[in-house]
Amino acid sequence: MEIIPIHIEKEIEPSDDLSELIISSNQIQDGDVIVIAQKIISKQERRLVELSTVKPSLLSEGISSQYQKDPRITELILSESKRIIRMKNGILIVETNDGTICANAGIDESNVKDGFATLLPLDSDKSAKNIREKIFKHTNKDVAVIISDTFGRPFRLGQTNCAIGISGLSPIIDYEGTQDTFGKTLRVTAIAIADELSAASELVMGKTLKTPVAIIRDCSFPKGEQGISELIRAEDEDLFR
Amino acid sequence: MEIIPIHIEKEIEPSDDLSELIISSNQIQDGDVIVIAQKIISKQERRLVELSTVKPSLLSEGISSQYQKDPRITELILSESKRIIRMKNGILIVETNDGTICANAGIDESNVKDGFATLLPLDSDKSAKNIREKIFKHTNKDVAVIISDTFGRPFRLGQTNCAIGISGLSPIIDYEGTQDTFGKTLRVTAIAIADELSAASELVMGKTLKTPVAIIRDCSFPKGEQGISELIRAEDEDLFR
Repeated sequence: MEIIPIHIEKEIEPSDDLSELIISSNQIQDGDVIVIAQKIISKQERRLVELSTVKPSLLSEGISSQYQKDPRITELILSESKRIIRMKNGILIVETNDGTICANAGIDESNVKDGFATLLPLDSDKSAKNIREKIFKHTNKDVAVIISDTFGRPFRLGQTNCAIGISGLSPIIDYEGTQDTFGKTLRVTAIAIADELSAASELVMGKTLKTPVAIIRDCSFPKGEQGISELIRAEDEDLFR
Repeated sequence: MEIIPIHIEKEIEPSDDLSELIISSNQIQDGDVIVIAQKIISKQERRLVELSTVKPSLLSEGISSQYQKDPRITELILSESKRIIRMKNGILIVETNDGTICANAGIDESNVKDGFATLLPLDSDKSAKNIREKIFKHTNKDVAVIISDTFGRPFRLGQTNCAIGISGLSPIIDYEGTQDTFGKTLRVTAIAIADELSAASELVMGKTLKTPVAIIRDCSFPKGEQGISELIRAEDEDLFR
């Protein structure tokens, strides 16, 4: 298996065509998985907010005063969220409008112009699908596309890349019913391959390297048309909500 | 970056030398990261328990009766744990004796003989260090070694591989104080590279393929002598304990 970093020097603007930029690397082959950092999707899709235009609510002002947070950022977090799951030490763990649970609704001021913040794409599955279809149209290569973002985790320090949008791959490999090397039937093993591919891609992306795309080659994955909701645990089966 | 699966056909016994088996693949180069599945470490280190020898306590019988669990497995889970963090739907999320938080204390009946279960290694950092030192002694190649296991996660469905033991690499890359592509100083980005390497290795290991080792090549990682405790979030900074 091989992971190929794709360097994109250009600062992404809404007028850019991301699929063209990826195709122009001349690296794509049939069966590749292409992992794209959320940030360039957000920039291309105008999910960039100038903080001076944000008017914080009294709730945002109140929460922010507890944690010395920028109330405009808190306002953005709340507007991108269905509800707050935890709030402590200045971190808001929220359920975003599309059901993902993450810190600060994925809103981020790094790698953007001063005074701006990026929001998560409105529909990352759709973003992935659009890029996948354009790549097929222009190159005739059938690939899978993952949009990924960097999330923290309960219990463990440090962040890892996770999938937030998927097209062309089934995000979970369910081994239930298959046999282990002793011929016993496996019962509860289901691997979140979309998250493992995202984590793997981060190893070549870095945070300061202008490498927002990685191609993963010679990795066997199940094809499928499901989206990111397949990776979200239902609330009544979640021991930590 | 490249990920090379190492096939080991042999069923691992305590008399085996894992470093020899890995060396005999003739694949190792200086600077490689070698990720090893917990299960072969446990088998080599006699962390295999015959269930018929386990006498469940009344507590284990009681818990098991609630969930139709095997009380001998519950007994093993409790004996490997400091405390129970959550208990629901037959899953015990525990803090293991070495501080890791995971389901069922990592105890597992897959890929072992019928009537047996594997426990996690007693000290996976030490297991990693031993193998790393033997590889260096016999090949003069300086590698990093990770022992990994498959864990579930809150909020998200499916499991991913995580590090449980480390030698020769610093498990977290802290970007705090470095500059992003706009020259702004990054504040809170710290990447759990040991977990991302573990997740990446799983993509070539599978669960039924007799591929318990993967070599990751051309991945830049920070060298270090820290162990797995660097990856465990302190309880008072954990929003989900």
